[in-house]
Amino acid sequence: MRIALYQCPPLPRDPAANLERLQQRAAEAASRGAALLVSPEMFISGYNIGRDAVASLAQASDGPWAERVAGIAREHGIAILYGYPERGADGVLFNSVQLIDAQGASLGNYRKTHLFGELDKGMFSAGNDQYPLLELNGWKLGLLICYDVEFPENVRRLALAGADLVLVPTANMEPFDFVCEVLVRARAFENQCYLAYANYCGGEGEIRYCGLSSVSTPDGDQAAVCGREETLAYADLQRDKLEASRARITYLQDRRKELYGPLA
Amino acid sequence: MRIALYQCPPLPRDPAANLERLQQRAAEAASRGAALLVSPEMFISGYNIGRDAVASLAQASDGPWAERVAGIAREHGIAILYGYPERGADGVLFNSVQLIDAQGASLGNYRKTHLFGELDKGMFSAGNDQYPLLELNGWKLGLLICYDVEFPENVRRLALAGADLVLVPTANMEPFDFVCEVLVRARAFENQCYLAYANYCGGEGEIRYCGLSSVSTPDGDQAAVCGREETLAYADLQRDKLEASRARITYLQDRRKELYGPLA
Repeated sequence: MRIALYQCPPLPRDPAANLERLQQRAAEAASRGAALLVSPEMFISGYNIGRDAVASLAQASDGPWAERVAGIAREHGIAILYGYPERGADGVLFNSVQLIDAQGASLGNYRKTHLFGELDKGMFSAGNDQYPLLELNGWKLGLLICYDVEFPENVRRLALAGADLVLVPTANMEPFDFVCEVLVRARAFENQCYLAYANYCGGEGEIRYCGLSSVSTPDGDQAAVCGREETLAYADLQRDKLEASRARITYLQDRRKELYGPLA
Repeated sequence: MRIALYQCPPLPRDPAANLERLQQRAAEAASRGAALLVSPEMFISGYNIGRDAVASLAQASDGPWAERVAGIAREHGIAILYGYPERGADGVLFNSVQLIDAQGASLGNYRKTHLFGELDKGMFSAGNDQYPLLELNGWKLGLLICYDVEFPENVRRLALAGADLVLVPTANMEPFDFVCEVLVRARAFENQCYLAYANYCGGEGEIRYCGLSSVSTPDGDQAAVCGREETLAYADLQRDKLEASRARITYLQDRRKELYGPLA
């Protein structure tokens, strides 16, 4: 399965412009054979936009943005994972991502569970204990957002549930290159899964984003690595490579969960 | 606190020669101001020596090897962490490490809990639920052995108990450079501790060791990095650097243990 990562500078507080460029990138990615397009955290609205903008822009998971993305997905025959500010049924605001399949149906929605510092906590409530495991083209997918992936527990949880590929829209900023360069690779290897990390580049207010989006493979390699510039990057996920790596590196079977009580 | 890592080729089935070179390296490390010398996994006997040799060589944790290492530690005024095949009180064989302080007293013994493949399983029984937290010169130390450190759960457990520094004697072999180059750095960063990884270089039977011993720091840097050759490497651990990193990177406070039930 070929997937595409869209690394770009944010266009803050401009959903129309972001949906327009999502449309363009979806067309391009589909024309090059990608089955899935992954965009950064809060792609529809921008990330560093403040509480007031989040509150005025946020939509339900089945609101107009979802309809528009479903239309783009159907038109180009490509699944799309997009980040957005979600207004829950009770008016609570979440930092969410939603996966829409190539027929325009929602496969699942995830609300960021691990909020990053005052920046996130000033805008959002944390998601609760719902880590959906989705299926796309025979691949089992887990969803995380940015800071979530830095906790080994979150990727482990998805891997134990059977995830083959963990998709991580992010807004990772300077000086945290380490997360892009080291931590996400460790996550894929230690859990024997693929891991796609789609970041912003450029700046937004006082923030400078790291870029360095990537697709890490279960054998410690990388199937895609971006630099600091806007990029539509591609990676080809191989089922046989995943199976071969899992046969050789048996962490999930060799765990001793009876020893891990202090973690939970 | 300055620590020394002794990366060397194994001298299989020759405890006398290994104790002799331990004596020499302890003298050298102490003369350069190190408070602790860390040697590789199963240093006293060699690692890839087979079940029969393990059974014939293994000693109790308070046997003659422990007395000899205590004498070396006292003579040079340096703490020593050494790996050895341990015969338990019930005759069971463990892959163990023991930390002796500069006065020759044992601070603790650890039995490898996560055995690596048929190689380990053919020689040893796995340790049980005992992960000692030791104190040396005001630093809280955790102990792991080789494959143990590849499981994020094990380092997390020690960090939650308060470890400032995790010591990892290892016998990591080709083709697993990834563990040396990426995974151990991730462990130090995600747990906000120092992590010392002391490996063999050279070969032993059909095994080629990776070398690449290191001391990883909590801010993602490395305080020591070895190549492929025999090396006595030094790292200076800084309490203020550790505290500054922990103030900035707050994973341990930001964990949500109520979400990690599936791990344990």
